[in-house]
Amino acid sequence: MKKICVLGAGLVGKAIAIDLSKQHKVTSVDINQNSLKKLNSKNIQTVCGDISDDSFLKKTISPFDLVIGAVPGFMGYKMLKNVIEYKKNIVDISFFPEDPFTLNNLAIKNNVTAVVDCGVAPGMGNIILGYHNKKMKIDSYKCYVGGLPKEKTWPYMYKAPFSPIDVIEEYIRPARYIVNNKIVIKDALTDVENIDFPECGTLEAFNTDGLRTLIRTMNISNMIEKTMRHKGSVKYLKALKKTGFFNTKEIEINGNKISPIKISERLLLPLWKLNENDEEFTAMRILIKGTENSVEKKYEYNLYDEYDKKTKTSSMARTTGYTCTAVANLILEKKFKHKGIIPPEYLGEEKKVFNYIVNYLLKRGVKYNT
Amino acid sequence: MKKICVLGAGLVGKAIAIDLSKQHKVTSVDINQNSLKKLNSKNIQTVCGDISDDSFLKKTISPFDLVIGAVPGFMGYKMLKNVIEYKKNIVDISFFPEDPFTLNNLAIKNNVTAVVDCGVAPGMGNIILGYHNKKMKIDSYKCYVGGLPKEKTWPYMYKAPFSPIDVIEEYIRPARYIVNNKIVIKDALTDVENIDFPECGTLEAFNTDGLRTLIRTMNISNMIEKTMRHKGSVKYLKALKKTGFFNTKEIEINGNKISPIKISERLLLPLWKLNENDEEFTAMRILIKGTENSVEKKYEYNLYDEYDKKTKTSSMARTTGYTCTAVANLILEKKFKHKGIIPPEYLGEEKKVFNYIVNYLLKRGVKYNT
Repeated sequence: MKKICVLGAGLVGKAIAIDLSKQHKVTSVDINQNSLKKLNSKNIQTVCGDISDDSFLKKTISPFDLVIGAVPGFMGYKMLKNVIEYKKNIVDISFFPEDPFTLNNLAIKNNVTAVVDCGVAPGMGNIILGYHNKKMKIDSYKCYVGGLPKEKTWPYMYKAPFSPIDVIEEYIRPARYIVNNKIVIKDALTDVENIDFPECGTLEAFNTDGLRTLIRTMNISNMIEKTMRHKGSVKYLKALKKTGFFNTKEIEINGNKISPIKISERLLLPLWKLNENDEEFTAMRILIKGTENSVEKKYEYNLYDEYDKKTKTSSMARTTGYTCTAVANLILEKKFKHKGIIPPEYLGEEKKVFNYIVNYLLKRGVKYNT
Repeated sequence: MKKICVLGAGLVGKAIAIDLSKQHKVTSVDINQNSLKKLNSKNIQTVCGDISDDSFLKKTISPFDLVIGAVPGFMGYKMLKNVIEYKKNIVDISFFPEDPFTLNNLAIKNNVTAVVDCGVAPGMGNIILGYHNKKMKIDSYKCYVGGLPKEKTWPYMYKAPFSPIDVIEEYIRPARYIVNNKIVIKDALTDVENIDFPECGTLEAFNTDGLRTLIRTMNISNMIEKTMRHKGSVKYLKALKKTGFFNTKEIEINGNKISPIKISERLLLPLWKLNENDEEFTAMRILIKGTENSVEKKYEYNLYDEYDKKTKTSSMARTTGYTCTAVANLILEKKFKHKGIIPPEYLGEEKKVFNYIVNYLLKRGVKYNT
């Protein structure tokens, strides 16, 4: 039995702790006592405290064999840096905006394995791409992904377990793609296309900045990642953006200065709030084209995963969290020993590792159909 | 030659002054020197001053035979009251929200004819209804009206010569209808229906509060007025409303208190701004059903009027302004002598008056097709 410290007890952090606690001694850490409360009954130790406090973090993680990073994105980079400095292996799903490779030398120097972006997308998409990239010359990679509520409430038909500001951020950050071996920048929310899933009908996919580490690590001529929403909803997001409701620049009204995005965040909060028992699903489609053993080859992976009514575990927590726990187990079992910053595509390059993760997910009902 | 004082030199006020100046001595009054500038070359006297200043208003209007009220709605009621107190006949297109009949006794006491709501809708719609109401038993009156830009810019496909706040006001004020002889209150922006016009394609009509004086003056079982916009645009307005962007209640963000509607007003201003040479049109359809001489009868009136490129006069100014100037001439020619508050439906009750107005508009190219 290994000792694991899970930093963050949000929706995904909780599911990670519960999954790992079946085989390991798990401690969850969060600043919010309420978030920890639900874990107390689950044979999980809890510690309430501020992960952004360096000395608290150091003291807290010191007895553990492995750390899981499941903190909000804005805290992620600093947390990761600290964990590496304290010489602990870590699997991270904080999805922070900074470049993780700036910590690569530190991780190598400290003999640390630091797997980043280890969720579903980024995460499993990278793992699948890494796997095929080792076996073939890929010309084109496309990844479509979306986490959505089953109930479609007009107009946005969207709910999320995180703050609207993080969602809006996806809609304003320019999307970086690889087109004919060049980086191309596109506006978010553009190039809307319909993607059909038999389980949930037609979704709308649009440009968002999701390639992350792949832009640096892969040598593939064409790579695109798009976010999916329920069909008919994207035009409303585009209209809000066009009108200026996502503008961050403050405007002054009667002496009060305010960013329109702050108003939007506040107004969208109740509409976009995913409540604990709201049924949701994750849909993902990965399309890989290229040449394998001198033959043109296409691979297609489809994921459709739903909220688990029995355990009341959201699909987002299942698909993100179980990819993370699979990799955590790989590291604890010493089946993956590389040091430094490890984006998920590096994991997929090893066939045994790839199969381990796919089977681990399959046992938990998260199935990538090919 | 009569002496007419036009209060307000906005888009419609200007067109009124120019039209009347062809037969009369016209003076235009506005607080904005820039608005007056364009009238100086047109054989129109101009006075720059604050119409809401009672003593200024009294002094200014004292030499005139007739006053035209073309001020913003929020100033309209007080201006009208003052003009009646100063014993001047007036034709008003300020479309103020207050009940004009509260000034009826004052107008009668002062021997004043005060025609209110004398534009296109309210205005011409009421005149047509009043005309038929005298000749038949009407069961149903429907009025569809919209002033729209010819260019359809996504998503709102809308431009207006007045402030966005006045437009948004239409989208939030509950609509009052008469259904089976009872007042029924409906949310604005609801009951969207398609209305086809051969000249501009399909428009979307929805509930807005436009019956005004008709609710009080008419004894008709069913009356509806709807506003029209370009097809495909109304859903975006509904989405803004649903999200809370039209909320007037202040919310506090980082110590700053702000109403979402104020942010919306500011952001929509550049999108909805009708520039001087933007081509626009007015579309109106009036449907009257009932029994005439024991026979079931239907009447349909259709107006499609466009921006006049030659004189650079907007359709909104033409359709609103020329109804007002027709009635101004009627009063000056003593063809309408009733005293008190006169809503336009009273004008239509007299066949001679009705024909005078219709012909006056026809001479100016504003044609109601039956």
